[in-house]
Amino acid sequence: MKHVRLHGYWRSSASWRVRLGLNLKGIPFEYLAVHLVKDGGQQHQPAYRAINPMGRVPTLEWTDDDGQERRLSESMAILEYLEERVPSPALLPSDAYLRARTRMLAEMVNSGIQPLQNTSVVLRVKDVLKADEKAWGAHWNVHGLTSLEAAVQATAGRYCVGDAVSFADVLLVPQLYGARRLGVDLKPFPTLLRIEAACNELPAFQAAQPDRQPDAQPV
Amino acid sequence: MKHVRLHGYWRSSASWRVRLGLNLKGIPFEYLAVHLVKDGGQQHQPAYRAINPMGRVPTLEWTDDDGQERRLSESMAILEYLEERVPSPALLPSDAYLRARTRMLAEMVNSGIQPLQNTSVVLRVKDVLKADEKAWGAHWNVHGLTSLEAAVQATAGRYCVGDAVSFADVLLVPQLYGARRLGVDLKPFPTLLRIEAACNELPAFQAAQPDRQPDAQPV
Repeated sequence: MKHVRLHGYWRSSASWRVRLGLNLKGIPFEYLAVHLVKDGGQQHQPAYRAINPMGRVPTLEWTDDDGQERRLSESMAILEYLEERVPSPALLPSDAYLRARTRMLAEMVNSGIQPLQNTSVVLRVKDVLKADEKAWGAHWNVHGLTSLEAAVQATAGRYCVGDAVSFADVLLVPQLYGARRLGVDLKPFPTLLRIEAACNELPAFQAAQPDRQPDAQPV
Repeated sequence: MKHVRLHGYWRSSASWRVRLGLNLKGIPFEYLAVHLVKDGGQQHQPAYRAINPMGRVPTLEWTDDDGQERRLSESMAILEYLEERVPSPALLPSDAYLRARTRMLAEMVNSGIQPLQNTSVVLRVKDVLKADEKAWGAHWNVHGLTSLEAAVQATAGRYCVGDAVSFADVLLVPQLYGARRLGVDLKPFPTLLRIEAACNELPAFQAAQPDRQPDAQPV
């Protein structure tokens, strides 16, 4: 993979996951900011839609070894691809069942929490349904994180699955940031908080934090 | 994998995906119905919560070759596990980039559409937000299927990725059923409809259809 470019947004949790995957694998990349709010959302403009028809971040682009230009979206698909192309350090355990449990924990965030409180959904709850978008987002975080705190007990070591960083940690850390923004009380999730603290000691996690990105804005 | 048991619901698209995975791989399984509506939702009752803390279907249970009892939820994690344990027939292409594109298409449904219109979300839009839950669900289907129709053009053959059934088809077919239930006009998605028709010619897809399940109810 050469000339790797990540189209992302500093606060997008899906972009953050891919930054983590690239950092943990030691893959250098160029970061191209797509502002999700400015100008009605740059992700909806023709220039970005040509790259990502879904109008979502992130999109990863790169030049393959055979010279082909490649493009991929959906953070889980990107993480799986990085794992196959750059197997070391592994972000999935070598045991098949533990690998499945890792993907299960990751999907509890990826399909179970995040889609229900991403920017476009929260804006629709607020602007179209005229409802309290923070209460809506907080509800799904509490529901999903309660389940995740229970599920992670079966495998947790220093991280979500034993003592090696995995997809599950890559999904967890950005989600906890999102939950805090919605005012969710995280005290009922001590295992998740402990794992988050362990992750945040790692340089790859520190470099991926939203406020360290070039498009970060004062909060 | 011995004594495979699938806890599911006839109309749950995530349960349907796992039925498809098991059928396509030729893995015999016992089907255990969990009624998502009756009794306030059997998935919320202690007996099922002990099996699946998230209170969601499906859950797959089996006895492993070493005699261990195993349990897994989240349909994408289950499909990936089945692919690793029973590699043939493959539901992911052998080429790494096409494999990634397959997962991308699958995730456009798995995280991009389905979570926004599953039973618990639709009920919350109706009962808590007092809004039109069908319009809500239809909106996200139209948005996601429009993107999927565009994205699939790059790889479609007889199926979503070339001429072999893949994860992408396994995710597509149940989603189109869900879209129809919400009254979505599917004419703008001719490629997706053509692929659905091709899938439905296969016995594995026919046997997985909701109205063929033992817990199916008259519509």
